[in-house]
Amino acid sequence: MHEAFMELAILEAKKGKGKTFTNPLVGAVIVSENEVISKSAHLKYGQEHAEKNAINLCKTPEKLLNSTIYVTLEPCDHYGKQPPCTQVIIDSGIKCVVIGQHDPNPLVSGKGVEKLREQGIYVIIGVLEKEVRDLNEHYNHFFEKHRPFVSLKQAMSLDGKISLRKKRTNLTQKKVFERVHEERGDYQAILVGSETIIIDDPLLLSTKKSHFPPVRIVLDRRGRVLSNFKLRIFKNATAPVLIFTEKVGHIGKLPKHVEVCYFSSVTVQNVLNELHKRNIQSVYVEGGSVIHDAFLASDYWDEIICYVAPLLLGGNSLSSMSSNRESNSKTPLKFVDLEKIGSDFRIVGRRV
Amino acid sequence: MHEAFMELAILEAKKGKGKTFTNPLVGAVIVSENEVISKSAHLKYGQEHAEKNAINLCKTPEKLLNSTIYVTLEPCDHYGKQPPCTQVIIDSGIKCVVIGQHDPNPLVSGKGVEKLREQGIYVIIGVLEKEVRDLNEHYNHFFEKHRPFVSLKQAMSLDGKISLRKKRTNLTQKKVFERVHEERGDYQAILVGSETIIIDDPLLLSTKKSHFPPVRIVLDRRGRVLSNFKLRIFKNATAPVLIFTEKVGHIGKLPKHVEVCYFSSVTVQNVLNELHKRNIQSVYVEGGSVIHDAFLASDYWDEIICYVAPLLLGGNSLSSMSSNRESNSKTPLKFVDLEKIGSDFRIVGRRV
Repeated sequence: MHEAFMELAILEAKKGKGKTFTNPLVGAVIVSENEVISKSAHLKYGQEHAEKNAINLCKTPEKLLNSTIYVTLEPCDHYGKQPPCTQVIIDSGIKCVVIGQHDPNPLVSGKGVEKLREQGIYVIIGVLEKEVRDLNEHYNHFFEKHRPFVSLKQAMSLDGKISLRKKRTNLTQKKVFERVHEERGDYQAILVGSETIIIDDPLLLSTKKSHFPPVRIVLDRRGRVLSNFKLRIFKNATAPVLIFTEKVGHIGKLPKHVEVCYFSSVTVQNVLNELHKRNIQSVYVEGGSVIHDAFLASDYWDEIICYVAPLLLGGNSLSSMSSNRESNSKTPLKFVDLEKIGSDFRIVGRRV
Repeated sequence: MHEAFMELAILEAKKGKGKTFTNPLVGAVIVSENEVISKSAHLKYGQEHAEKNAINLCKTPEKLLNSTIYVTLEPCDHYGKQPPCTQVIIDSGIKCVVIGQHDPNPLVSGKGVEKLREQGIYVIIGVLEKEVRDLNEHYNHFFEKHRPFVSLKQAMSLDGKISLRKKRTNLTQKKVFERVHEERGDYQAILVGSETIIIDDPLLLSTKKSHFPPVRIVLDRRGRVLSNFKLRIFKNATAPVLIFTEKVGHIGKLPKHVEVCYFSSVTVQNVLNELHKRNIQSVYVEGGSVIHDAFLASDYWDEIICYVAPLLLGGNSLSSMSSNRESNSKTPLKFVDLEKIGSDFRIVGRRV
């Protein structure tokens, strides 16, 4: 019974997809005497939370008294952009709150449940927890692992090459190009190395419309990108640009959307720590090969998304995920998904 | 009508699969007044051809007079291990011969048809030609392109690596291991480089039983394999071993199943020419990386069979199909097949 109503709440939550950044997706369903009397979701960042929406939208408010609310995520108990949901629930007369998962955000975690229970409301926690957690995988990861969720994305030939040497090489077809531009929008940041910027001069934008387009991050240890303001990421201000460098010294006047972050050593760990501080919950790492290998070696990554094109490059072409690092072990993956996109494949693997 | 009987002949032909090496698969169906009165195939190397089998097995020999025989491949007109099929057909009273494809073997090609027509037999050629040709792809390729059909086989990680450096590395699971050992039996030769022999010390045998197990070929330019008779290919005499080398000089007494072939330059072209002379119709090239790249660069190859394991190796691991050769272009493939084998994938591509 609880599961069926929680499933409905999950469906509601999905209505906010792509619009709640950087908030999680949340859905709520209110049930009185086994009948759904209202349902809604958190539909847009900065606007009402799911619980408040469901309560406000209820067309039979007299039935709220002693009703049960199913909510995918623990209700908040703090003033943010909105008043605390716990208070809204208490005021509504609802008597039972069924929750999918604790909110991993320390601002909320446990406090919502505590407040409700103090007020004599009956609280159940953990219904369809796995399914509910999948709604906000990056969000959960961010607060639980204290770093962004990291996806390594590459396009390679069937002989494991990502490019001819020193030469921009398109491997996959238009459909993959479109898919990647859409997929970028599922992340809060896109990360590339300076070599990629210099050779490909990409815009690094997503086709998904968002008030929070992914931040464009460049690892530019030697300051090579910083010395070329003609590059398109400098000219186009659609999304912020964040450049990590070890190079100290005079830089020209930066465009407003560009910020430079100095580290004496630009390591994966330093970069991810900085992103964590900036509340960036997820990163789409587009390489190249040495950057991907640095993430692999650092152990700070979660997923690999591999587009495979029906091509061979051979010879001295650039190999996927490579460096001079002595590699001594195999890193096993769990295959998550395989999809054919036109004549290319998309293979997704996760760390075991 | 012709197509339906030819399809039946194709089904018959397949009954000889794996048993007719180095002969092609051939099926025959005899029809009298729209009724199948006999059918058979070439079932074993050295034994009767399909036409003779079908004629001999006919339980109503009185109906052979003025009947039609459907045969997937042009009947032979020469004395080999068997008397010419053309004569057997002529003697049987058959009046019409419907043929799938001309025999590309110059010993036969066109001559069978000519002889039949001289004797007043009505001959139709080219019924279901594509399907019929697929029965004997390697055989057709061998006689038409004057070299063996070449499949490049590799097992790689999802980052395009075939091995950790200087260290035997199993990437795929047992099911792929079994599949590869079976697949070897579809070829008349297996080819590897000396590095593979020295690091992996493989037996290079197939699990498919055959009177003609694939010849084990080693490219050993510097004679490194030849100086180590403890290797398993020298000890195990189940299949012949053929070693190509540039190294001149004294070798110890070779085991009976081992032959050495000297070239001042062991190139892909020289090797394939030699195999052509030896009537080897197909080669399964198991690498390593430099050998595969040499085949890619030579343009003498036809197919790539790529087993992909859910692993990452990264760093300085050995990349698939690589060398110091300056690669300037992409070689497009046509995807032929994708299969999941346990937790691994098998992807097959062909040259476009």
